[in-house]
Amino acid sequence: MSELRQDPITGRNVIIAEGRAARPNEFVSVATKAATPCPFCVGNESLTPDAILSYPRDRKDAAWQVRVVPNKYPAVQWAAAAVGTHEVIIESPEHIVSLSELSDEQAALAFRAYQERLQALGQDERLGFTFIFKNARAAGGASLEHLHSQLIGMEFVPPEIQLQTSKAGEYRVLHGRCIFCDLLADEADGNRVVSESEHFIVFCPYASRFAYEMWVVPKAHEQSFEDASAEQSNELAKITVQAVRKLEACLDSPAYNYWIHTAPFRMSRHDDFHWHIEIAPRVARLAGFELGSGCFINPVAPEHAAERLRNV
Amino acid sequence: MSELRQDPITGRNVIIAEGRAARPNEFVSVATKAATPCPFCVGNESLTPDAILSYPRDRKDAAWQVRVVPNKYPAVQWAAAAVGTHEVIIESPEHIVSLSELSDEQAALAFRAYQERLQALGQDERLGFTFIFKNARAAGGASLEHLHSQLIGMEFVPPEIQLQTSKAGEYRVLHGRCIFCDLLADEADGNRVVSESEHFIVFCPYASRFAYEMWVVPKAHEQSFEDASAEQSNELAKITVQAVRKLEACLDSPAYNYWIHTAPFRMSRHDDFHWHIEIAPRVARLAGFELGSGCFINPVAPEHAAERLRNV
Repeated sequence: MSELRQDPITGRNVIIAEGRAARPNEFVSVATKAATPCPFCVGNESLTPDAILSYPRDRKDAAWQVRVVPNKYPAVQWAAAAVGTHEVIIESPEHIVSLSELSDEQAALAFRAYQERLQALGQDERLGFTFIFKNARAAGGASLEHLHSQLIGMEFVPPEIQLQTSKAGEYRVLHGRCIFCDLLADEADGNRVVSESEHFIVFCPYASRFAYEMWVVPKAHEQSFEDASAEQSNELAKITVQAVRKLEACLDSPAYNYWIHTAPFRMSRHDDFHWHIEIAPRVARLAGFELGSGCFINPVAPEHAAERLRNV
Repeated sequence: MSELRQDPITGRNVIIAEGRAARPNEFVSVATKAATPCPFCVGNESLTPDAILSYPRDRKDAAWQVRVVPNKYPAVQWAAAAVGTHEVIIESPEHIVSLSELSDEQAALAFRAYQERLQALGQDERLGFTFIFKNARAAGGASLEHLHSQLIGMEFVPPEIQLQTSKAGEYRVLHGRCIFCDLLADEADGNRVVSESEHFIVFCPYASRFAYEMWVVPKAHEQSFEDASAEQSNELAKITVQAVRKLEACLDSPAYNYWIHTAPFRMSRHDDFHWHIEIAPRVARLAGFELGSGCFINPVAPEHAAERLRNV
């Protein structure tokens, strides 16, 4: 049973989730297990719980293209601790390990599944936020290598979202504008821009925490990822896959994470937020300095990273 | 040349340190290099810059017991960017990898060196804080395995210290007492206590972020680690070495970090802080959830961790 604890000094939330110590890689090895047979491969559905959502192929067989199942080792769960829900989004029936290996069509389905689950969970009054994230490759924290993302629905709004939301709120009070929109305007010189499409821009942020960090941001002011149109969502999938391909060409297929920052459910001042995806390559380890001080050290200036990513 | 950048949305500080990309393990491999010859071993002093501080042995030869040198790949440096200083504290002339391998006498010298450098850097008006931390073993972020700690002097007070300091200040305004002292009182039942000595207590904090996380805290209310007496510092070294030995016996010699949280230099309201050491075992990888949400998931309740650590 998981338990939500708040640090009495900092107020930081920690989820104590003892069920997870049984996970395949916990306390055993830092290498990603190529579990045999892979529970996420098509044909092995009996190795995972029943699907919450499944996109079938356009034919009579039972095969699927994207499948969402409950996490077998949930970090949060309802019942006594009542903290939330933890799901796994399996984005391919084939045994691949990176978003870059998806076709545009398949990637579009993956992003559609993210949206569909967020929309469904947004109806649950108990949830304050649903966090979608991907861990790709061992150094990115993937415990199974088969391509998947995860979704954790929580009662509370997590610290990073609280921080971005409250700072964006302050900025609007002071300047009457969206801080993310102003940031995009600041990128007009293209120095840190990696790529662009009709509705999206990919750039390396000014104060990138990670070498080759990229953000994918809608050009128009929109608060919620789950409300993006099907056309936009497809375009987003395409430009995100392309960004990951660029990253892998620059850095020899590194581990990476990405996560979706969207407005909290039932946020009262909707206009303050501007949703986006943050892509974090994991080429250096987080060590004592970062963990203990809360500061990041980045060995590659984002202008240089963007230039290499643009030209790859 | 390193550059301090503040994220326009969150206000988070990031150090852009391009000189560091030349470090042995950056972007190449996640394994710790057993560099040959090891630049930190006795006899190989010519492979590092000249010592800032050196504790010689009690005899005529040139051998040393603890040596402090500038970091060859500094994350921060004076000159144009004017952000600070980055030093390496080599805690043993012998090629060992963990604090647990030090004798009590040798460990006492290491902690004396930490204090001596903090006292010296505290005289520099440009510095707001000096952060001392250890990365032990590859998964802890050690780029060279030979036992060492690092020290980064910064113009600004880093976020984690700001957070603990400001929360402790609020608590004192509300309750008239130190939040750390009250926390220690709450641990009186011994449930989360690992060990105790005359002046120190080692416990697993209530909202531990990491499995088997331990804090070493002085029982008396003291704001600055560098002001601890020689007797206290020796006792601290001994109980910290013992805590790491317990950790290594419980978890098969895991990677770990520790860092010293002491009051910022020239802090105006000195009484608000209570210095301590935080020990973070690195048995699970930080992944997309932790990095993107700012929340931690801990698979071992601190009560259970403390029980195992106590009894090992």
